[in-house]
Amino acid sequence: MPEATVARLPLYLRSLLEAQHANAATISSERLAELAGVNAAKVRKDLSYLGSYGTRGVGYDVEYLLFQMSRELGLTQDWPVAIVGLGNLGQALANYMGFGDRGFPIVALCDADPRVVGTEVHGVVVRHVEDLPVIAAAHGISIGIIATPASAAQDVADRLVAAGVSSILNFAPTVLSVPEEVSIRKVDLAVELQILSFYQQRRSGGPKLPPLDIPVGVED
Amino acid sequence: MPEATVARLPLYLRSLLEAQHANAATISSERLAELAGVNAAKVRKDLSYLGSYGTRGVGYDVEYLLFQMSRELGLTQDWPVAIVGLGNLGQALANYMGFGDRGFPIVALCDADPRVVGTEVHGVVVRHVEDLPVIAAAHGISIGIIATPASAAQDVADRLVAAGVSSILNFAPTVLSVPEEVSIRKVDLAVELQILSFYQQRRSGGPKLPPLDIPVGVED
Repeated sequence: MPEATVARLPLYLRSLLEAQHANAATISSERLAELAGVNAAKVRKDLSYLGSYGTRGVGYDVEYLLFQMSRELGLTQDWPVAIVGLGNLGQALANYMGFGDRGFPIVALCDADPRVVGTEVHGVVVRHVEDLPVIAAAHGISIGIIATPASAAQDVADRLVAAGVSSILNFAPTVLSVPEEVSIRKVDLAVELQILSFYQQRRSGGPKLPPLDIPVGVED
Repeated sequence: MPEATVARLPLYLRSLLEAQHANAATISSERLAELAGVNAAKVRKDLSYLGSYGTRGVGYDVEYLLFQMSRELGLTQDWPVAIVGLGNLGQALANYMGFGDRGFPIVALCDADPRVVGTEVHGVVVRHVEDLPVIAAAHGISIGIIATPASAAQDVADRLVAAGVSSILNFAPTVLSVPEEVSIRKVDLAVELQILSFYQQRRSGGPKLPPLDIPVGVED
């Protein structure tokens, strides 16, 4: 299955849950496309990878497609999560209950700061990052969330991989190297805000500062 | 400038900050590509949109490129942010200080729940969402962050747009309709986790449940 298709499956899942919530028994590819924010031809192509082709004039069976999608995405079981780095962002993530509700219970927290180790966040005691191999084995950690500063992130990624964790969600603003068999996804909230400020500035008439008087890299 | 290029500018910015931190005066497109996690030809093409071409055998001037990048992204000024929805996620975002440090001060918080309105989060008093037009005008809100449940998100988006906010960062797990001139970006943490669980499950040998005994949509 192409990576781009995999990345759209969660959007279809969410859209199907909306349709189910509205008591729809079937859904057309056009409606599903609208809810997911993609085009209908892409929906049909993506769903064909699941072996789902819909019925002409009827569409797809919502319940069955939901089941297929959940199973394909591995959501018929829980995937225990460890958060490493309990600064502002890590604490926010540990306190956010949206993960556990969706099959990603946060079962372990780690930090390197002795002032943080031993404290409790949302009912979980923070352990030292050196204990990761023991923690990962004891809790069957599937996914490691890195919420450290950029400077510590590669070391933490290496520790997670060494502890046998093969899925990583990285919130640290840096690019990490991991072995090919490890999956890594990246969330950088500042990047999203900076993209918005680019367009915001365009709308308000462009940069406010005059160009620097440097003879290379002149703006057009 | 192509949208894909705009989306990569923040990655170059971050990479240039790393290079600056390491006291590099110049940087090659190869090194910048490595730090940003893209290929070198793409880096050169992207930077050419800024009018930056580097010097053969020397590369790009780090300080000047940083200045150009910051200016292009609108980071030479602050963009005041309002968060709407002070549930778990909204509170976590309001408490996360990483935004203000990077030019996106959170100056206003709104909610529709009378039990939440009037409380204080991280030093900011939560206002009623109906006050958005007044708040947006008073604080010059540039960016609205939607952290409500999916069911409330479209109404909040409409209110933000009506209040003159033209950049939206949406954390609610739903697709929103906004006028063409409004920029909208989306962050869905569950999507990232679900993509990871897809690959995690593949690695561990595929779905655990047997196929349902339904004659349509058979798995291969």
